[in-house]
Parts: sequence; structure tokens; C-alpha cells
Amino acid sequence: MTESKAITLLTDFGDRDVYVGVMKGAIATINSQLRTIDLTHQIPPQNLLAARFALLNAYPYFPRQTVHIAVVDPGVGSSRRSIAIELENGYLVCPDNGLCSGILELDRAIAAVELVNSRYWRVSNPSYTFHGRDIFAPVGAHLASGVPLKELGEAIDLKSIVRLNLPDLAVDRDWITGCIQYIDRFGNLITNIHNSAIEGKSWQIIVKERAIDLGKTYSDVDLGKTIALIGSHGWVEIAVNGGSAAAQLQLTWKDTVRVKLNS
Amino acid sequence: MTESKAITLLTDFGDRDVYVGVMKGAIATINSQLRTIDLTHQIPPQNLLAARFALLNAYPYFPRQTVHIAVVDPGVGSSRRSIAIELENGYLVCPDNGLCSGILELDRAIAAVELVNSRYWRVSNPSYTFHGRDIFAPVGAHLASGVPLKELGEAIDLKSIVRLNLPDLAVDRDWITGCIQYIDRFGNLITNIHNSAIEGKSWQIIVKERAIDLGKTYSDVDLGKTIALIGSHGWVEIAVNGGSAAAQLQLTWKDTVRVKLNS
Amino acid sequence: MTESKAITLLTDFGDRDVYVGVMKGAIATINSQLRTIDLTHQIPPQNLLAARFALLNAYPYFPRQTVHIAVVDPGVGSSRRSIAIELENGYLVCPDNGLCSGILELDRAIAAVELVNSRYWRVSNPSYTFHGRDIFAPVGAHLASGVPLKELGEAIDLKSIVRLNLPDLAVDRDWITGCIQYIDRFGNLITNIHNSAIEGKSWQIIVKERAIDLGKTYSDVDLGKTIALIGSHGWVEIAVNGGSAAAQLQLTWKDTVRVKLNS
Repeated sequence: MTESKAITLLTDFGDRDVYVGVMKGAIATINSQLRTIDLTHQIPPQNLLAARFALLNAYPYFPRQTVHIAVVDPGVGSSRRSIAIELENGYLVCPDNGLCSGILELDRAIAAVELVNSRYWRVSNPSYTFHGRDIFAPVGAHLASGVPLKELGEAIDLKSIVRLNLPDLAVDRDWITGCIQYIDRFGNLITNIHNSAIEGKSWQIIVKERAIDLGKTYSDVDLGKTIALIGSHGWVEIAVNGGSAAAQLQLTWKDTVRVKLNS
Repeated sequence: MTESKAITLLTDFGDRDVYVGVMKGAIATINSQLRTIDLTHQIPPQNLLAARFALLNAYPYFPRQTVHIAVVDPGVGSSRRSIAIELENGYLVCPDNGLCSGILELDRAIAAVELVNSRYWRVSNPSYTFHGRDIFAPVGAHLASGVPLKELGEAIDLKSIVRLNLPDLAVDRDWITGCIQYIDRFGNLITNIHNSAIEGKSWQIIVKERAIDLGKTYSDVDLGKTIALIGSHGWVEIAVNGGSAAAQLQLTWKDTVRVKLNS
Repeated sequence: MTESKAITLLTDFGDRDVYVGVMKGAIATINSQLRTIDLTHQIPPQNLLAARFALLNAYPYFPRQTVHIAVVDPGVGSSRRSIAIELENGYLVCPDNGLCSGILELDRAIAAVELVNSRYWRVSNPSYTFHGRDIFAPVGAHLASGVPLKELGEAIDLKSIVRLNLPDLAVDRDWITGCIQYIDRFGNLITNIHNSAIEGKSWQIIVKERAIDLGKTYSDVDLGKTIALIGSHGWVEIAVNGGSAAAQLQLTWKDTVRVKLNS
């Protein structure tokens, strides 16, 4: 008997209803030995960019072969595909709507399938509105229990997987051009420029032709002042001490930001 | 050694305090191998109808013999009984205040006991205010570990178990008469008429002598308009796109709704 | 192979981000058999008194040798120490900032170490802002897996551990002098005088030279009236039915309260 893999759950279901509990019930019904770890269930409703960002930040810290089940699913009941992806360091089971975009940039995908084999669903006639319970949780449970990816459905071209159109990161000798990939509920602007790209270098972040002061923590500047820092997930971040950088700088999701590297 | 059963927890304790964690500590102290799954701890304080509804929607998706511990307990410290119920597909450990009403309509009860055997409590002199920790969690842990129901206390008549007085569902050839069994925080009115009763038939829902348009999702009607649909738990539901059906239709918990079946 | 110990987690990370999930990923990466129980992640940001109180109330209900990982850490990245403490009934892994103060009054500490052995960290160069992931979770996972305390770092004097300066409880024949150790979000004032100190005695609580009526539940007095009772964690508590005792009595954290014992 092979040891079962860990499972994580990420949804926008919140904690007031029993939806997440029911997904865990569906998993326990298939294999009572499986363990689930909640990433978060507080993704803002149907916010795929937020889901992409949350997965991206959690993924590297889990054991190899962990099965990540992610259900933020504005298109449930429509013709969007349900998919599972095998990567070098883990598996993803999710709607094909772009929420896996971040992980696909981080890790190497090996294979993917469309989840059409209803043998691994909870029921062969799934609900129109709750594929988390009827498809994603059961499929994730089977995958974590040792069912091979290719059993779960039909192979699909990795290139056909839906991506969210975040502008690519552009790096040259003096500049890194990135974008706002996430705005948290305080209005802090998290860019897609990672600490690892600037570590050990002298740098400034330029927004709307203005350089923003660097610091280590929000309180390194006066209340109401703007600061650039490395946030706790390792991304270059723009914040306002005690305020909203998004409001103050009038920047939003996907907007461009540039880092100047000083030699 | 028999495998231990799964445990679920449902309370109105919220997530700010350590109450739920402490219940899990009490369970782990009895048997460190037990697993607990949270249904929700965000039942509105002391709302038995909401607890009944949450349990009802979660119960069918758990493995047989799962032990459901439910603690919404306005009468804690009073003379209300503490009970455990064995059903065909699971166990329930809870105060005898009606929160099990929904499950008792769904599944066949086999036996029930009043929890008077203090040997299976955490302490023989339980707190006046926290039976979740001192009685329900420990009893549930023993039950999940293999202690037979009849050991936990004195047998009680199944008919003596407190029910919440929701009007019965009445079904004839042309009409199904039901009621509002739950109102969610958006004001959506969830009836006790299940999808399975109308599946494959043509139907309309009549409220206050007015037929409400049918649809599949909230956005099938204009903002502010009323719609009837099958909600994600499978119940006929009345909603207002972007608004509160409870406020707009002036309907509340237990009010009557009727479905007309067209031949 | 020795059985692994239970782990609890307490933080002020909330549930919107993946921080807590990531700590669990770091734990599962070290030992996939470990179980974690959430105490709460809703400690008000950086509120050490609230964290101290939550730990104090949860600790007695867990199995012996449970490893409690607590991360409320205003000084992360500064020179504050990271420590692990072995007590008679459990282990604590946390920043040395006083949040363990309550448990140290409750249970007997046996030994403590400063966590300087980076072999038991996730990485040898931990993040400046997220020691929960890089130090506390991994160290707790190793401890729960059987690594002896002394391997984790350098022994420190138990007396050197930072305490929060709550006034000592003073007990004589007629009076117990204590303080407000916690204020909940309703403004209820929880003292550090425990039920066990007054059980079976006749007593009154005196605040600002005024005796407060005793009761069993908030509703034992009229709306807006003050009441003293034993709260659900067993502490003498002052509440206002439907209001805030903190606001009405103008009392705050650490303020003195006195109980008069009548003979």
C-alpha cells in the first residue's frame, strides 16, 4: 500500500456555509486516511487573480506530490473544462479558467487531462453549481490515493490551458518591468517582481515617473507616506503606512511597475 | 482494533476564541487518532433553524457511521437533555433542542440515549456553560472510538426527541406545499422543497398568489428582479438578483410557499 | 518508532491569506504524519495579552506533550529571541515576547532553549517577516516528531524568559486582588481571578468602590445593567447585558479589580 498524498483546498466559499465541510466529506468517503489542509476559503468571490496569487504563494511550501484542489469557478455549469495537471512538484485539480497560471510559471507541468472520466466523480450527473463537491474533491481524493493522472480523463495539450493575461516580466541589465499582480484588502500593491531578482542589488521602484522610498517595514515611513518593500511572500510591494497605496497612487490590477537596478 | 470513525463539528462559536480548538483538544486527549472535520462554526448565535439546515445539507456527503457533534445550545445549563442518536448512516451527538430535526427527516433513526453516563464525559462535574467541551466532544470521541451507543446513557424514546416545528411538506398531484426553511445572509429564501420532488417536471413557484420566473442562476433576471431556482444544496430557492428576497417579498422563516406542477 | 505528538497553532494571521496554510505545508514537509489543531488565527494583530489569554485557556485541554506553536510576533526581524519551552504537560514554540506568560503561571517549566540551531529551520536564511513558516513551524514539527528540546538550540535560563507585566494575584482571608487580563470584542472584562479561588464561597466583586451584582448569565440583569459572573473559561468576568462593560465602567487591560470574600 502506497502512502497517500497530502491534499490542500482553496476556494471562495467562505466559512459560513457547509460547502467546504461537504468537500471534505466527499474526500473522506473515498479514502478516510486522506488529510486536507486549508489554504484559504476567503478568496474574494470569483476573483481569479486573487486565487492565482494565493496558490502561487502557497505551492512552494508543500511536500512534493501534494494534490492542490482549487475551486474559484465563475464558469461552473458552463462549458469551461475541469482539469488536473501533474507538475514536477505537485498536482493541481481545478476549473480551466486561469487560476493555475501562477503555478504554471513557477513549476514545470508534465501532463494534464480534462476530467471526463465520471467513474472518479462523486456521481455521474454532477450538480450544475457545485463541481467542488461532485468533481474536484472526489478526483483530488482519487489522485491523492494513487490513481494515475491519465485515468482521470483525456490528455490535453499543456498549451491549451487557460492563462490569465498578466503582462510578462521583462528583465534587462538596468530595468525590471513587471506589474501589479495582487492588491490586498489594505490596498497594498503586490508586484510580480520577486525578491530573488533583485537580491543583493541596489534598486529603486519607479511608479508614474516617481521613485518610491525603500524600507523594510510599513512603519519605516511616516503615516500617509508611500514605501516600497519586500513583502512577506517575497514580492516587491508598494504600501502606504496607514493608508491605501491603490487609492493614493491610482494603480490597479495588472498596471505596470518598473524597478531600476543601480550599478 | 477497529478503525475509528470520522467526526464532524458544527457550532455557533465563531473563530475568534479558542472554544473549537478546546473541543478538539478534548477529543485528541481521548484518542489521538481521531480526525475532525469542521462543518461550520459560524452558525448565527443560537439559531437552531440555521443549525438544523446546515446539518441537513452536510450529512448526506459523509461516510457511513460518521459522528456529527453539533453544539448550538441556547439552553446549556438548563434542564434540556444531552443526547446521542444512532441513524442508519451516521451518529449525532447534540443538545436535545431540535437541531437534529432535519437529519431525522432525512435518515432513519435506530436508537437514542440521554447522555447521563458521566464516565464518558471529560469531568463528572461539567461546566454550566460549555457542554461542548465537557460532554459533547468527549462523548463523540468515545463513540467514534468504538464505544457502543447504549453505554453512553439511558435509552430514550425516539418520539420524545425535540423537533423544530417546520410545517410538513404536503404533496399532491398538482401542488407541493412547503415553507421557508432557511434564509441566508443575502436574504435568499431557501424552501424545504427539494429538487428531487420536481425533477423532470414543469413547475412554477407561487408566492402570495404570484408566480415567480424560473431560472438557473441569479443573473438570469435583471438586477432587482425575483427569480426561482434550484440552489446549490438542491432546494427550490427564491432570490432577488443583487437584492434581498426576504425583504422584497416580506417573507420569513417557516412561511408557506407552493409549487404548482404543470402536467 | 514513537508516536508523534499533537501540534496546535495560534497566530494573528487571520484566514484571508495563505500564511496559516503555508505553516501547515512546512510542517507536512517535515513529517506527513503530524496533525495540527487550530486554536485561533484571529488574535487581534500583535495583541500579546490576547494571545497570552487564548493560550492559557486552551492549554489545559490538550494531551500531555502537545506542541503549541504560537506566532504573534510584533518584533519579528528584530533581536527578540525565538524560543522553545518544555513544561510538565506540553511544549511551547514561540517568540520570546511574553505570550507564554499565562502558561508559565499555569504549568511548571522544565527547560527552555533559544532556537539557534538552523538545522531544524526550513532554511538557514529565514525571511525577516515570516518566522512562523521558516522557524517556528519547522521547529515545532521536529519537536513533535521526537527531536529532543536540547537539540533545537542553546539552553536559556527560565528566569530570562520575557513576561507580560500583569499585576500578581493577591489573596488574603477576605480579599482577592486581581486585574483585567482580557477584554473581548463585546467589551466584557475578564479578570485573572479564577472560579477555583472562590468556589463554594460567598463573594462580591468590587470595582471603583462599588459592588456589582452577581449572576449566572448576562440576561440575569436588565439591558444596560452590569453583572459579575463566572465566564465560560472559568474566570470572574464583568459584563453589561447588551452593552460594553469596558466602556461603561471605564476600565481597561491590567486595571485592578477586587473580590470580597464573605465569611
